[in-house]
Amino acid sequence: MSTATAFDFTPLLPAGLPAPAARWTGLARYSFVGGNNDPDQVPVEGLVEAVNAVLRREGKTLATYGLASGPQGYRPLREFLTAKLKRDAGIACAADDIMIVSGSLQALDLVNATLLAPGDTVLVEQETYQGALSRLARLGVKAVGIPLDGDGMRMDALAAVLADHKRRGVTPKYIYTIPTVQNPTGSIMPQARRAEMLELSRQYGVPVFEDDCYADLVWSGERPPAVYAMSPHGGVIHVGSFSKSIAPALRVGFIVAPWEMMSRMLALKTDAGSGALEQMVLAEYCAPHFATHVPKLTRGLRAKLDTLMEALDEQFGTSAEFEDPKGGIFLWVKLPDHVDTLKLYQAALAAGVAINPGPEWSTDKGYAGCRLRLCFASPSHAQIREGIAALAEVCRKQFGVPERSANVEKRARS
Amino acid sequence: MSTATAFDFTPLLPAGLPAPAARWTGLARYSFVGGNNDPDQVPVEGLVEAVNAVLRREGKTLATYGLASGPQGYRPLREFLTAKLKRDAGIACAADDIMIVSGSLQALDLVNATLLAPGDTVLVEQETYQGALSRLARLGVKAVGIPLDGDGMRMDALAAVLADHKRRGVTPKYIYTIPTVQNPTGSIMPQARRAEMLELSRQYGVPVFEDDCYADLVWSGERPPAVYAMSPHGGVIHVGSFSKSIAPALRVGFIVAPWEMMSRMLALKTDAGSGALEQMVLAEYCAPHFATHVPKLTRGLRAKLDTLMEALDEQFGTSAEFEDPKGGIFLWVKLPDHVDTLKLYQAALAAGVAINPGPEWSTDKGYAGCRLRLCFASPSHAQIREGIAALAEVCRKQFGVPERSANVEKRARS
Repeated sequence: MSTATAFDFTPLLPAGLPAPAARWTGLARYSFVGGNNDPDQVPVEGLVEAVNAVLRREGKTLATYGLASGPQGYRPLREFLTAKLKRDAGIACAADDIMIVSGSLQALDLVNATLLAPGDTVLVEQETYQGALSRLARLGVKAVGIPLDGDGMRMDALAAVLADHKRRGVTPKYIYTIPTVQNPTGSIMPQARRAEMLELSRQYGVPVFEDDCYADLVWSGERPPAVYAMSPHGGVIHVGSFSKSIAPALRVGFIVAPWEMMSRMLALKTDAGSGALEQMVLAEYCAPHFATHVPKLTRGLRAKLDTLMEALDEQFGTSAEFEDPKGGIFLWVKLPDHVDTLKLYQAALAAGVAINPGPEWSTDKGYAGCRLRLCFASPSHAQIREGIAALAEVCRKQFGVPERSANVEKRARS
Repeated sequence: MSTATAFDFTPLLPAGLPAPAARWTGLARYSFVGGNNDPDQVPVEGLVEAVNAVLRREGKTLATYGLASGPQGYRPLREFLTAKLKRDAGIACAADDIMIVSGSLQALDLVNATLLAPGDTVLVEQETYQGALSRLARLGVKAVGIPLDGDGMRMDALAAVLADHKRRGVTPKYIYTIPTVQNPTGSIMPQARRAEMLELSRQYGVPVFEDDCYADLVWSGERPPAVYAMSPHGGVIHVGSFSKSIAPALRVGFIVAPWEMMSRMLALKTDAGSGALEQMVLAEYCAPHFATHVPKLTRGLRAKLDTLMEALDEQFGTSAEFEDPKGGIFLWVKLPDHVDTLKLYQAALAAGVAINPGPEWSTDKGYAGCRLRLCFASPSHAQIREGIAALAEVCRKQFGVPERSANVEKRARS
């Protein structure tokens, strides 16, 4: 064999690929990004007990794809979910109405693959999950943003956009909503507004795609029924996750959907099943422990949110504006209009502070340009305080705000 | 809210979706399909010990996507793989050359998404993995089959097809090969032929896509170096799996590739990581136990293959022809020319026997029409004997072969 120059893959790459990834260089020292959770709240002992019990009882079934539960996932986990969804979200469904997936991201991919083609239009909340927006962009699908208020998606705006599209002969493929602990704003859509949304869905023949993956993390412990639960017509696809309630590195989410959608998504789920051990452990742990674990988790998250809001007050003073979210793991913050959070993101990262710049979480890049998302579940209380101080220092150097006196002002006030 | 008729998703579905899935009705009584393994060979006690150790030591890291190991997967598992690949396959690579994926099926999807566009051509072994063929069909990619002999893909045929495509101005995007325990034929490509393939790859600028997911299961325990290991030019993408060596329901596979490909695939792996618990358990179990577990597993599989071949001889006599495979979990069987295994598949399933009809595993539907694949790892020895007897009965009723006397003939001979 002759020696040869390195093989060149470039001529083989099709058009339209995303930019190549950079080498991973580790987590930021102060990380306020990603859906990471509080390491001290992972129920390690409970998971150990669960995995011992379930492996000793059923470990041999790991020899079979799908654990002899079929392509919709481990049946005991689906049975836990039917009880949990009934109790928490008012959803009456059977185990056969549920499909376990590899995190709610796979749910997004399956729903999109079933309904979307390039050139299609979908309606989304104007501020919404970055991973949903990036998927739609990659698919060549137009995401039309519907403005939000403190109660989530505005129904007057939704009605106007639906009517406008109907006049133009365009049927949007779905209305994507995160109604319970909206990402990134943290609002909860009231029950009456959910009913309005369903009526518009029926009227225009556009299904609702309900992403409920933060819905377990409500400070009050109470939430409205899921949109899925309220629907009189069945035109709702409901998605949830164990990432926020137990641990994100366990890649387990689920879809509840009518069989017409489910049978199409199953045909597209060609991964030979989602991870079985993670499904087994979750079923074994959650059946006895979920209802007591979650309130403990949310109390800890609420305390971290308080630390974050105090740190922002102390470091940014009146330069940082935000609403107190009703649950979740993130805070949506407005800085003064002239701050460009895409630039702030770069400078902060260089200083060891990772943030989510607003434009990545909105269809309105102008509106979101001075906004950012801060995730507070993963850093410790001390890291939150130090990281926000470091962020304020970077922001002051780059944009002149907060003024140096903010800290003193705030202290004088309190 | 008014009562309403059921929501109709049909007008929203794009063209080209696969047919909807049917409701799952359970596993066949005698199942000779799928990559399922021997339930008695799942190392349950070893996995329990591993999961206890790793969860108590590192369980809190489950709060972080990617376990603080970054998007290429749990670092200790990648470090195990560098040692294993060096020892078993002759591959010298670093942990950063490896990406952990959710089973080798995700590897197929990522390689395909990086290199293929509708209308492209790829070269495959004429008889090959059904999941590879179905993916290519769904992507609108033409799969050109290269005939096999007892040593795998024929290099004279590959050279002719490459030359023909070059004349027509077509560069195939890759040469997909399962060189070590070929699926479904069970052959192993000798080292000299691997070198010939690499020389053709270099000459025509077509990379080799090496699927090594059965390569641990070789009866002799010895295998040629991986094509990846032999390449002087780096134009090889190597894929492997823990599904066959440990347990298929753990969805863990891996890709070894040059950074030019790796960085592109990482940009397309938007699933927030593969299941962390399964990666942790595998790393913890495999580092001390893999090298002793696999020979024990293959001895058991070889015994089941012997039972299968005996049962075929006894029940089908000379009507069933097959080569003794060099490893793996499947046997590729030829029945008399007039037997249509697509029809046999339907009739056998009705009788509780699941088989893989040949045409689903070949680009040459005519050649494969009287052939079938039988997987032998999952059923017990008794189930293998009973299932093959039941299959022979169905085949006799439908196609008149084997003749009723085969059993007696065979016994008289032995």
